[in-house]
Amino acid sequence: MKKVRIILGSKSDIEICSPIQKTLDEFGVTSDFHISSAHRNPEKTAKLAQEAEHEGFGIIIACAGMAAHLPGVIASHSTLPIIGVPIASGSLGGTDALFSIAQMPPGVPVACMAVNGAKNAALLAIQILALTDPELAKRYKEYKESLKV
Amino acid sequence: MKKVRIILGSKSDIEICSPIQKTLDEFGVTSDFHISSAHRNPEKTAKLAQEAEHEGFGIIIACAGMAAHLPGVIASHSTLPIIGVPIASGSLGGTDALFSIAQMPPGVPVACMAVNGAKNAALLAIQILALTDPELAKRYKEYKESLKV
Amino acid sequence: MKKVRIILGSKSDIEICSPIQKTLDEFGVTSDFHISSAHRNPEKTAKLAQEAEHEGFGIIIACAGMAAHLPGVIASHSTLPIIGVPIASGSLGGTDALFSIAQMPPGVPVACMAVNGAKNAALLAIQILALTDPELAKRYKEYKESLKV
Amino acid sequence: MKKVRIILGSKSDIEICSPIQKTLDEFGVTSDFHISSAHRNPEKTAKLAQEAEHEGFGIIIACAGMAAHLPGVIASHSTLPIIGVPIASGSLGGTDALFSIAQMPPGVPVACMAVNGAKNAALLAIQILALTDPELAKRYKEYKESLKV
Amino acid sequence: MKKVRIILGSKSDIEICSPIQKTLDEFGVTSDFHISSAHRNPEKTAKLAQEAEHEGFGIIIACAGMAAHLPGVIASHSTLPIIGVPIASGSLGGTDALFSIAQMPPGVPVACMAVNGAKNAALLAIQILALTDPELAKRYKEYKESLKV
Amino acid sequence: MKKVRIILGSKSDIEICSPIQKTLDEFGVTSDFHISSAHRNPEKTAKLAQEAEHEGFGIIIACAGMAAHLPGVIASHSTLPIIGVPIASGSLGGTDALFSIAQMPPGVPVACMAVNGAKNAALLAIQILALTDPELAKRYKEYKESLKV
Amino acid sequence: MKKVRIILGSKSDIEICSPIQKTLDEFGVTSDFHISSAHRNPEKTAKLAQEAEHEGFGIIIACAGMAAHLPGVIASHSTLPIIGVPIASGSLGGTDALFSIAQMPPGVPVACMAVNGAKNAALLAIQILALTDPELAKRYKEYKESLKV
Amino acid sequence: MKKVRIILGSKSDIEICSPIQKTLDEFGVTSDFHISSAHRNPEKTAKLAQEAEHEGFGIIIACAGMAAHLPGVIASHSTLPIIGVPIASGSLGGTDALFSIAQMPPGVPVACMAVNGAKNAALLAIQILALTDPELAKRYKEYKESLKV
Repeated sequence: MKKVRIILGSKSDIEICSPIQKTLDEFGVTSDFHISSAHRNPEKTAKLAQEAEHEGFGIIIACAGMAAHLPGVIASHSTLPIIGVPIASGSLGGTDALFSIAQMPPGVPVACMAVNGAKNAALLAIQILALTDPELAKRYKEYKESLKV
Repeated sequence: MKKVRIILGSKSDIEICSPIQKTLDEFGVTSDFHISSAHRNPEKTAKLAQEAEHEGFGIIIACAGMAAHLPGVIASHSTLPIIGVPIASGSLGGTDALFSIAQMPPGVPVACMAVNGAKNAALLAIQILALTDPELAKRYKEYKESLKV
Repeated sequence: MKKVRIILGSKSDIEICSPIQKTLDEFGVTSDFHISSAHRNPEKTAKLAQEAEHEGFGIIIACAGMAAHLPGVIASHSTLPIIGVPIASGSLGGTDALFSIAQMPPGVPVACMAVNGAKNAALLAIQILALTDPELAKRYKEYKESLKV
Repeated sequence: MKKVRIILGSKSDIEICSPIQKTLDEFGVTSDFHISSAHRNPEKTAKLAQEAEHEGFGIIIACAGMAAHLPGVIASHSTLPIIGVPIASGSLGGTDALFSIAQMPPGVPVACMAVNGAKNAALLAIQILALTDPELAKRYKEYKESLKV
Repeated sequence: MKKVRIILGSKSDIEICSPIQKTLDEFGVTSDFHISSAHRNPEKTAKLAQEAEHEGFGIIIACAGMAAHLPGVIASHSTLPIIGVPIASGSLGGTDALFSIAQMPPGVPVACMAVNGAKNAALLAIQILALTDPELAKRYKEYKESLKV
Repeated sequence: MKKVRIILGSKSDIEICSPIQKTLDEFGVTSDFHISSAHRNPEKTAKLAQEAEHEGFGIIIACAGMAAHLPGVIASHSTLPIIGVPIASGSLGGTDALFSIAQMPPGVPVACMAVNGAKNAALLAIQILALTDPELAKRYKEYKESLKV
Repeated sequence: MKKVRIILGSKSDIEICSPIQKTLDEFGVTSDFHISSAHRNPEKTAKLAQEAEHEGFGIIIACAGMAAHLPGVIASHSTLPIIGVPIASGSLGGTDALFSIAQMPPGVPVACMAVNGAKNAALLAIQILALTDPELAKRYKEYKESLKV
Repeated sequence: MKKVRIILGSKSDIEICSPIQKTLDEFGVTSDFHISSAHRNPEKTAKLAQEAEHEGFGIIIACAGMAAHLPGVIASHSTLPIIGVPIASGSLGGTDALFSIAQMPPGVPVACMAVNGAKNAALLAIQILALTDPELAKRYKEYKESLKV
């Protein structure tokens, strides 16, 4: 099964994003985790995006606040599915990050989650991986069933 | 390769959504196409969502304007990855649909595209399917390369 | 007199929604109360909507935050008047829920209240029931008079 | 069966609001129709609200754009259920009217529809009247069924 | 010199509005003060507006949050200059009240202040009264000069 | 009777602002008219503001779009009542101008009108002048009465 | 004198951005002009940013709509002053681009202009270059003076 | 090397703006610091802007909240590059200040930073000064490099 790469734009988003790796762990999906600002460290960011596929990653989850270019920048350097999580930092309640992540131009998609919707980023990644992993699909269905209780 | 199901909430969105099937066709991805309002025909909508997996679909793309509950409703009835396209109908410029699609609660993810971002919905679906289809992945990389010209 | 069904999308909204049942009680209107997410438990939600009329309910009040599809989903499964209360959860101040509840498409109305406007949902339900219940109408008029003091 | 009173804040909203009376007519619900600005003619507006109940009206539908105080002003002068339709006039896309109508304070509810959601105002009125009119309820169910085709 | 009438829509706005009377006092402008909701007590509100001129008031300052119809309702019942102060109550940061107060239709003006801009309402009233009161004009110029220090 | 000075920030706003002088004329209020950008010609703008009082003006009406600093800048140079009209130029629907004019800081009030609310600016000026001009007050009352027809 | 590099994210923005080069030409400032999407061609975009300084450019003006990451991406690859122009493409009126360009994180500034504010981008570049070019400064002062006529 | 002038519209913004002078100090750029409201003290503000160039300043950084006219007013009185920092004071989260600063009309540019983006204002000033100061440019490149760690 392919792995999931998680990239945060800033250390300050670690706590709000902690459900990502926790959820992937619970489903037995392997992930690694990086902090790499699209603006402060574009080379590292590009490299994390470009090398992901060859290192066995199938999906990249990128989380960022304010101008929140990280998911789009990663999408520019990879053909893997990219999931973006807008973070509500600053004083605009995350509207800035939501617009910056959702409003990608034709040709370079990013799957935008809710503001601070970290957990759903992991779940979408699992749904994608489950398409070709019957065991994971079974676990996801059980999880979905468990939400009903 | 799994197929992609496209569902529109309203006939009035056909033109803005036409790039979805066109793009899937160009990549050789099989899709079917339905108009089914989450509110006017919830049973049909639920059925289209529930039966998709068993009928060989791997991804559902749902497009809707205004309250735009369609992608979320479909996500409630399926464990497949759901891609939502907010449509700018009405007088709020699509902000209503963008919020309704992006702001899904924890547990039920929807991959939100840009307002009227129909083409990217198809491209994200292709990226997902390409994870386990080297030929499709190759075509997608060529497509991405072609954007640079 | 018909009863009022109250449905919340999430446990976290119980406190903000507590004025609903309290107000209905003060007016002698019978109500029941459920927590049922439109997304996490669509079958239960649909059933609560579909069976309401036959169980003697005349109005359904649905409360939800963020994407807030609950009132619309209930409206899709019932011909009773549906009252929706947008809840300010998340970081967008309830604008997301307000748009998701108010912007229903033609054919499937939802009566949208103010963000966190739980009490008014109960009052509107009472106004509706009072149309054919002179005693309740009298009590409502007294209540309205009492606001002037 | 009680009648429905329709009040518009301005002549300029007649066309956008024409589906209200048309829909009520189709369902055999009697209505009358007035243009009365809350601000330019408060006495007439108050009188239309105050006398509605005694004249056999059960519901008042009020439509207004911009500051859109009309539904709230009518609600202040009546204990009938009031349905408000925000109209997108001016340059703010109807956000101003939506906020003005939805954000009513505790004690004085208004049932807010979508921006320009004239038809749904009529449908909600019919749903309310149908609560105690089995024939109307039957017609509404048929209407709802017809939406599915 | 004419007096200034201050009307608040809700007791909860007393503190944020306290600079109004305090500022008028400092300039020697006589004012009275009322709490009267446009929605909960429309008759009292109308009366306060209608009688103001004959009781020697020249300006009415009205403060309200959320739907904030109070200043507009008062303007509908008086030909005096009306000053409206939008209050940031609820979860929308006062945008709702700002739109409701500023977006008055042609024919019935309200002078809108900043959200929570209570003090400026008093200052504008003083500027208006100072037009025909040289002593007050002198004091206002001194006040304006004092801001520069 | 004092005169009213009208200042526009840009030639492009002449048409939308034409009701100001027309309305003042109809009420027999003398006005002059200038185009003077706060940003492109600050000296002329300051002079128009500073000299207004000595030239017999009692009120200044300032109209501007986008950043719309004109009313605030004029208010900084005069102790007369300043009325600001936000103009919907550019792509933000006038929200930018509305915020820039309404959100004045404590100490320097501007009376903000609706977006493109040119006519109301004239009417507010007339209301202010009518406070000490019984004949004008009579005409304004007649005007207000005429709105009811 | 250093040159100014102009980069557009999309061919569709050429017309709205044409005042940039025209204005620079009028002031005798040399510029070159490129279309390079941050998302579709990140390598070209990075190269244009990285090589600008060594090729004699002192300022880069970047224009983009929707997610509008272009100015930020360029800023990540250069230490030159970067000027960003948000373009109103799509249905959100340019709010998305404005937020994406203005809300840059600490450490990587972008000078944000108004939505569609192409001409001001050129003028700011000229102001910057004029700091060490007395002749250009003189011409700019003359230009500024000419705005007053 | 030219100096940088920092002007705040209000004492209440001192803390949020303290990174400006601190950052300039760290880079060895000389600055002075003033509090001068555009509205309360327009003469002082104009003077600070007009005299800056002759006193050896090359850039002016202006910070303001709410209507936030300060940067624009300074730009009207100077041909130096002006950097504006919108401050999130009041209840609108700084959207008001962001619009007021970014949406400058053609002819009078202001370089708008993020809401509360004080540090970036200093960094942009340094980038500008570094264009003709190789030593400063070297330090800035080192700073940018240091962000990557």
